[in-house]
Amino acid sequence: MTDPTSPRTVRVDLGERSYDIVIGSGLIARAGAEIAARRPGIRCAVITDRNVAAAHLDSLVASLADAGVEAAPLVLEPGEKTKRFDELVRVCDHVLGARLERGDAVVALGGGVIGDLAGFAAGIVRRGMRFVQVPTSLLAQVDSSVGGKTGINSGHGKNLIGVFHQPELVLADTDVLDTLPIREFRAGYAEVAKYGLIDRPGFFAWLEANWREVFSGGPARIEAIATACQAKAEVVAADERESGARALLNLGHTFGHALEAATNYDSARLVHGEGVAIGMVLAHEFSARMNLASPDDAARVAHHLREVGLPTRMSDIEGGLPPTDILMTHVAQDKKVRRGALTFILTRGIGQSFIADDVPGDEVFRFLEDKRAS
Amino acid sequence: MTDPTSPRTVRVDLGERSYDIVIGSGLIARAGAEIAARRPGIRCAVITDRNVAAAHLDSLVASLADAGVEAAPLVLEPGEKTKRFDELVRVCDHVLGARLERGDAVVALGGGVIGDLAGFAAGIVRRGMRFVQVPTSLLAQVDSSVGGKTGINSGHGKNLIGVFHQPELVLADTDVLDTLPIREFRAGYAEVAKYGLIDRPGFFAWLEANWREVFSGGPARIEAIATACQAKAEVVAADERESGARALLNLGHTFGHALEAATNYDSARLVHGEGVAIGMVLAHEFSARMNLASPDDAARVAHHLREVGLPTRMSDIEGGLPPTDILMTHVAQDKKVRRGALTFILTRGIGQSFIADDVPGDEVFRFLEDKRAS
Ligand SMILES: NC(=O)c1ccc[n+]([C@@H]2O[C@H](COP(=O)([O-])OP(=O)(O)OC[C@H]3O[C@@H](n4cnc5c(N)ncnc54)[C@H](O)[C@@H]3O)[C@@H](O)[C@H]2O)c1
Ligand SMILES: NC(=O)c1ccc[n+]([C@@H]2O[C@H](COP(=O)([O-])OP(=O)(O)OC[C@H]3O[C@@H](n4cnc5c(N)ncnc54)[C@H](O)[C@@H]3O)[C@@H](O)[C@H]2O)c1
Ligand SMILES: [Zn+2]
Ligand SMILES: [Zn+2]
Repeated sequence: MTDPTSPRTVRVDLGERSYDIVIGSGLIARAGAEIAARRPGIRCAVITDRNVAAAHLDSLVASLADAGVEAAPLVLEPGEKTKRFDELVRVCDHVLGARLERGDAVVALGGGVIGDLAGFAAGIVRRGMRFVQVPTSLLAQVDSSVGGKTGINSGHGKNLIGVFHQPELVLADTDVLDTLPIREFRAGYAEVAKYGLIDRPGFFAWLEANWREVFSGGPARIEAIATACQAKAEVVAADERESGARALLNLGHTFGHALEAATNYDSARLVHGEGVAIGMVLAHEFSARMNLASPDDAARVAHHLREVGLPTRMSDIEGGLPPTDILMTHVAQDKKVRRGALTFILTRGIGQSFIADDVPGDEVFRFLEDKRAS
Repeated sequence: MTDPTSPRTVRVDLGERSYDIVIGSGLIARAGAEIAARRPGIRCAVITDRNVAAAHLDSLVASLADAGVEAAPLVLEPGEKTKRFDELVRVCDHVLGARLERGDAVVALGGGVIGDLAGFAAGIVRRGMRFVQVPTSLLAQVDSSVGGKTGINSGHGKNLIGVFHQPELVLADTDVLDTLPIREFRAGYAEVAKYGLIDRPGFFAWLEANWREVFSGGPARIEAIATACQAKAEVVAADERESGARALLNLGHTFGHALEAATNYDSARLVHGEGVAIGMVLAHEFSARMNLASPDDAARVAHHLREVGLPTRMSDIEGGLPPTDILMTHVAQDKKVRRGALTFILTRGIGQSFIADDVPGDEVFRFLEDKRAS
């Protein structure tokens, strides 16, 4: 048997755009060596945010320097607001100012915000440079760093401007999660559980048994992250540009996004993963109400997410929600809804999710009316 | 034989990203029908500039309306300065504000500036929308609208930010060139002649015999543009992302770009195609000096370009040039120069261009010293 503490590698299979996700302890200290081994002579711009920089930038820069890799760091403000055009311009200018060429790399050291922004810059400077992700939040390690979606927000909505630009290496150092605020860790955990709920019932059961070790660190954390990455990698390989099966990754997200919008994306009230947690419970409950799945499954999902400390009901959101007809406009405006038809990810039970087209809007409305009170 | 005045179609062969370039007279009046036939139900944003709008926007919008295609127009300032981040944001906002979805289209009605900017927006709004080019300058019809390079300028240099995003249809209406200022027509003609000089000696000879008809309009113009598009389409199909053979399209461009930079991109002094004209003559003369080609070929190229009214010598540029060592820094900073090695497109004669690596910088320097005086 292999040592459970040694790094794991997940391959994302995309033809000539294939790449490795390496998951393990102490990877930041080895980042320079990993990058230099793959691309001798490469130079880098390291994009990060102030929180992450305080805890991890020095180690990464030292590791790059030790391997002879020049690195020009840029530290941005933390938070979703950083995913905007002005900051994109700053990153592009920084990369060009460092005189990097097409074959050089933009390195994202941070959560999904930094990964999305830096990846977008990597996708457009010189019409596409190399891109390396060093995700530092759990959400980034299991979700945003895998799959090549990059982008920024617009006044018209979240993530509306961007490109598909695959990284050529992802280094997920599981130790860096120890400095992540627990609320952010839990939010990322909702996405980990999601992969079990989509099509890996055994993984969901394993999480029910082992979640404490995932939270505390060590081999179970590596195992959980590797399984999640493997799950996302398979979906991405089957549908790189999100034309079909990739929609399954939106389990819990139509309701979740609506709740985020309804709370004005105020992270003090609700962070994305919390919205997804409530959304996944709602998706299971709605599926039960439509007689697609057993209500016991919905209860089991709610029980587990609640146990790890996640919100699972609309009433868990502080400060109240707008009326249901307003909620519904957020449900329908979700950009995965095409030309007015309501598309949801529903389920036949744990690990049996599917894409449902033409979900009747009035059923959803009545369901939300009933649920918000409970 | 087919009617020489009927439209010609050139197919750009790029697997699932393949598309047609239709070249002919009166195509703007048929644009709505062409688009609606290919994509029933599609909606559009039409991006253009003030000059082009004055002459052709109404006809295009009417043609779209007749075919039942909704179109939201946006008119920008003409000129290279429009290829910047602020204007990109405006275009993206306009497209999103018109509530277009991924399957809808951005239509570029204009020269290379509008095509590059609108194409970039199409490449990033919703991570890639459909894109239709209606090129209105000769340069755009034979060069910038073909091949999928889009982008904007940065303080660090021209075209440094962008994406590869292929259009799904190019409609080159050869009549619209009648409103193009003659100087712009000539500049575009330099790029037409370039295809002959790269690898189509018969086409160059045909241009020597027929250029007057190309300038005056009619079947010869259609023929010339179709041949140029065919030539570019073949190069692009062989090397979509510019890693090798596509560099041949830079014939005349290393010198040309250096001259543009040396005149501060002041279009009153030198427009791009004029720089390319001088650059192509220099490339032939330098090749002769290196004993690669006959000096007669260089003389023939210079004669033809001069005959159509293009500048062919550095001394044709009004206002003088900086010292040769400054010119050389522009030659070497050209972004096609990789890691210090000087790469040029040289030639063994008309229609026999090739990529030359490791061209000795000092030879180029002495050549420029000699030539600028002549
Ligand atoms: N590209 C995709 O496929 C994809 C998928 C899902 C989400 N996203 C995007 O990801 C973003 C959310 O990602 P996120 O949750 O990582 O947000 P984030 O990047 O804002 O990180 C959350 C917070 O944790 C801090 N942080 C991150 N790592 C830390 C560490 N190791 N130690 C201390 N603090 C740390 C950050 O500074 C920030 O304050 C959203 O913008 C979302 O749209 C993208
Ligand atoms: N994407 C590519 O592969 C590629 C290739 C070559 C050049 N380019 C880019 O193309 C741009 C140059 O293109 P351009 O020469 O077409 O410049 P342009 O778009 O500025 O057009 C030149 C001038 O002609 C006007 N004009 C255009 N069509 C007209 C018409 N039919 N009637 C009246 N006026 C008209 C414009 O308003 C402008 O003033 C540069 O930015 C260059 O970088 C891109
Ligand atoms: Zn999510
Ligand atoms: Zn050119």
